[in-house]
Amino acid sequence: MATFIATPASIPPQNALLRLQDIPNAPPNWHPLNPLSFILRAAQIYPEKVALVHTDVQQPVIYTFSVWAQRIQNLAYALIKAGIRPGDHVGVIAPNSPMIADAHHGVLAARAVITPINTRLKHSEVEYILGHSQCRLLLVDYEYLHLVAGTKIPVIVTNDTGRAGDPYEDFLADGRRFSKEKGWPGLEAEPDENAAAVLCYTSGTTGRPKGVLTTLRGSYLAAVANAFEGQMNRHSTYLWYEHSIVSYYCPPNLGPDRILPMFHAAGWTFPWTNVTLRTVNYTHIWNHFLHSGVTHYCAAPTVQIGIVNDPQARRPPQPITAIIAGAAPTAHLIAELEKTGIKPVHVYGLTEVGVTYGPFTRNYDDPSWANLSLEERARLMARQGHAFATAEEVRVVYPVEGDAVSNGPLKDVPRDGKTVGEIVTRGNIVMKQYFRDLEATKKAFAGGSFHTGDLAVIHPNGSVAIMDRSKDIIISGGENASSLAIEQELASHPHVLEVSVVARSHIRWGERPMAFVVLHPQHAAKWKGRHHEFGQDMKEHAKKRLPGFACPEWVEVMPELPKTSTGKILKTELRKIVAKL
Amino acid sequence: MATFIATPASIPPQNALLRLQDIPNAPPNWHPLNPLSFILRAAQIYPEKVALVHTDVQQPVIYTFSVWAQRIQNLAYALIKAGIRPGDHVGVIAPNSPMIADAHHGVLAARAVITPINTRLKHSEVEYILGHSQCRLLLVDYEYLHLVAGTKIPVIVTNDTGRAGDPYEDFLADGRRFSKEKGWPGLEAEPDENAAAVLCYTSGTTGRPKGVLTTLRGSYLAAVANAFEGQMNRHSTYLWYEHSIVSYYCPPNLGPDRILPMFHAAGWTFPWTNVTLRTVNYTHIWNHFLHSGVTHYCAAPTVQIGIVNDPQARRPPQPITAIIAGAAPTAHLIAELEKTGIKPVHVYGLTEVGVTYGPFTRNYDDPSWANLSLEERARLMARQGHAFATAEEVRVVYPVEGDAVSNGPLKDVPRDGKTVGEIVTRGNIVMKQYFRDLEATKKAFAGGSFHTGDLAVIHPNGSVAIMDRSKDIIISGGENASSLAIEQELASHPHVLEVSVVARSHIRWGERPMAFVVLHPQHAAKWKGRHHEFGQDMKEHAKKRLPGFACPEWVEVMPELPKTSTGKILKTELRKIVAKL
Repeated sequence: MATFIATPASIPPQNALLRLQDIPNAPPNWHPLNPLSFILRAAQIYPEKVALVHTDVQQPVIYTFSVWAQRIQNLAYALIKAGIRPGDHVGVIAPNSPMIADAHHGVLAARAVITPINTRLKHSEVEYILGHSQCRLLLVDYEYLHLVAGTKIPVIVTNDTGRAGDPYEDFLADGRRFSKEKGWPGLEAEPDENAAAVLCYTSGTTGRPKGVLTTLRGSYLAAVANAFEGQMNRHSTYLWYEHSIVSYYCPPNLGPDRILPMFHAAGWTFPWTNVTLRTVNYTHIWNHFLHSGVTHYCAAPTVQIGIVNDPQARRPPQPITAIIAGAAPTAHLIAELEKTGIKPVHVYGLTEVGVTYGPFTRNYDDPSWANLSLEERARLMARQGHAFATAEEVRVVYPVEGDAVSNGPLKDVPRDGKTVGEIVTRGNIVMKQYFRDLEATKKAFAGGSFHTGDLAVIHPNGSVAIMDRSKDIIISGGENASSLAIEQELASHPHVLEVSVVARSHIRWGERPMAFVVLHPQHAAKWKGRHHEFGQDMKEHAKKRLPGFACPEWVEVMPELPKTSTGKILKTELRKIVAKL
Repeated sequence: MATFIATPASIPPQNALLRLQDIPNAPPNWHPLNPLSFILRAAQIYPEKVALVHTDVQQPVIYTFSVWAQRIQNLAYALIKAGIRPGDHVGVIAPNSPMIADAHHGVLAARAVITPINTRLKHSEVEYILGHSQCRLLLVDYEYLHLVAGTKIPVIVTNDTGRAGDPYEDFLADGRRFSKEKGWPGLEAEPDENAAAVLCYTSGTTGRPKGVLTTLRGSYLAAVANAFEGQMNRHSTYLWYEHSIVSYYCPPNLGPDRILPMFHAAGWTFPWTNVTLRTVNYTHIWNHFLHSGVTHYCAAPTVQIGIVNDPQARRPPQPITAIIAGAAPTAHLIAELEKTGIKPVHVYGLTEVGVTYGPFTRNYDDPSWANLSLEERARLMARQGHAFATAEEVRVVYPVEGDAVSNGPLKDVPRDGKTVGEIVTRGNIVMKQYFRDLEATKKAFAGGSFHTGDLAVIHPNGSVAIMDRSKDIIISGGENASSLAIEQELASHPHVLEVSVVARSHIRWGERPMAFVVLHPQHAAKWKGRHHEFGQDMKEHAKKRLPGFACPEWVEVMPELPKTSTGKILKTELRKIVAKL
């Protein structure tokens, strides 16, 4: 690293004020909640602390908080010079890298709205989003330039070098010159805390992507909650693997969509160190676990499985907290993580993740669980739990009738851990609206709460437990079988690495579960050429644990499961396979 | 404790909803910030966790979160039945005890404003406050009934027993009956987050007490910051010694005044356990340190000195964080605490503490300090540091000219660690106004920020260091001598337990410092009958460390220093002594 020197434009002047312009006529006992205040604070208190580590690339860079804050400021001025006005949308297409980290702050510092666009999309999808979002400028990583070919929107390219001559670096340097050293006090603070912060695109499996619009107030309170729930502090180091900065909150399969809250929390509440990886690479991940002092990371169970099963896996020298999102952890995964010395924390966010600024519930473990068997404990840990500290309560309600869309009232299901209803939520860490889609907004907020589409029960202590996405429920012989519950049981088979279950139509029962299984590398050899026998073994295993209607009728062994870039299993792809059978 | 059974009215029904009434027409992506949400959340997630421990009394009580939440609800209904309407003021006079803990939540649950009144006041002072505050009802501990003798305001008395037959318990039971089991959903949520939460009285050394009015939004964000800065979590146990619940934020010498933020934080962010002591009693404190798993407490240096010097002091089995407020810790105190295994964290709040909801800056230690000598480290730790995570930046500005009171702009002093200015602050965790005192409010907020009256320098990294209260500066031979800086140096004398320095008029120099010293018990015998010699010894000690104009001209040994109930040294009393010399 001795060879890396930040560009001259990245070096802040001595004793610079890290404060935005005063808001005229603001009441003295009020300031608008804005996540930007956290990065300014970090740069103020710990200017020399390492903020960004981006070293697993050809041209590694490391930035301190004071340098990072200067780069963010430069970006804000550069955007303003480029004609960006308050409320304008600025698109970003990039993997985890300093530019997208800068943008999550710098765009807000220009009072503009960041529109992160998923790198896994096709050109035509990006084209649609660019049109719908009305982006005025694009910041694009060199690897994804093809996605914006032909656009009329101005594009700033980064080669991800951090060196002078990189067009993005020149853009920043130009911003610095334009600032005439007025620094942070030369930038206006957004006076309205309910102004938009992020516009991220997500889509269901049908129709066009929808633009999720969030606010500064929501981002601030979500950032606080994330830091809280992770018990992160200024001594923490957060590993952003692969696309987690850009798409952690919105799996790309569901649309082009990235959002910042966790990342916001990163720079915004405590000055912790951020390590960024452009791609999932277990060698790099373990390298950072063992040698960079990483204390926190977040990943879906499938990536967690990859981590604990990597040949380099061993007990790291410092405690690590694994935030598990995207799906509930299995007993097997919990055991493997704990054996490696990694503490699992299970959180839940929506599939359209931007809607709740990332995760918004957490499974709160209880000291009494220490006396339970691993299996019992895993069952409790698989629950999605309670709302984050700054969120409003999560409810499970009876489905809304057709014409009740306009105004509920929503009716809670009993807290019996049995009655299935839909998870709804509202309050400070719920999105403001779907951008330019009043109809979808109205429908999503029927009865005054956001409808998640996740079917769940609620336990007497208010802890929610998802049974399934409504579309993943398998209706077998008139019974509702939860694909999640089936997966949970099948995963306990000792030879299974991963499993996913979808409905397959059945002449007698309507639908029956079909299981797709990846064998554990240590056991794959044993079943080589005998997948049918394994299927029998698995069915025997299931029979002992599941009611008949929930037992898989078919078991298919696969080399790997189709997944999103964030490691979420693509059931849509499995359904396509099933449809062809 | 086996003998304690909560009253029947304190036992909640099964599976009660812990949610206030919906706010009509609230936007679905918004809910008002209200610290009440934290206690409801704690009772929801950890119903069986111990919330309140009040055992160092004749009739000990212990409440779980679920029981506590029920008692709070009962109190809200009881207040409503008694005619309390939204915005009404409810006075409380009590030491740390369950009633005042209940009231900090229950009064808010009735959408009313809590007015805690200091137990150390005289009857005439209480009378003035009752009139000025327009309290509609009073909750009074049996020990302080004499303070409200003759009042026409209805009084509810507690005998602090927690047993049926106690008038306060009967009041709660009556509230429960009145609720008709409508529970929390029968109580309205306050729709305006800027509505008043607390009215606490404080007074300068001159004039009538002033009523500091704070808001729900401010209380919420201050609670979040306190939990954050203390890195408190659901496994923490907080010890509230003596009057810390009621007057921690406003030392009684400065007026009748108590406020809740830290206490709010207590029940409101994480469900930690609270231990309450009616009085400072080192035996009880050490008993809880060693046997109740206390992890956090807050006290002024003088109480901290008492704690580490207590004969029972030894390394507690669990890590303890000592939050030090009221004055900067000396090197000696830091060393003693660390030796005992207690981690010191230095925070700063105003003398009129309600104004900033308690402490609002913190000294952020840096890993590099580990290499410094204790003395150097203590010098850095004595700085007041940076604003809390949810506060706006703290500034040090040049004094405002007479006619600039109406509208600044305030001008920052250079960040050179030398130029003395006044600390000002503004934003979410600053009070709304002085109640019924427009003139004082206007003056306090001259230039749009609250003027603390504390003189300080600001270091290049934005860390503030108080030199003195403006009135405590000693003008000696035309030089400004900081009494705090002098005390810091005199305290390094190995035979000193405590020291305080004030100005005494001097025929030649105008003013000269006079030191009041309490000798360490281990060394007092040595100087018995030789206080004059000790004075000489101290002057020699001072000469090596201080410029001539700052050396004490007089040294007076005292058996103890006059103090407030929170342990802050009463310089006003020392000045009275000086005036008579």
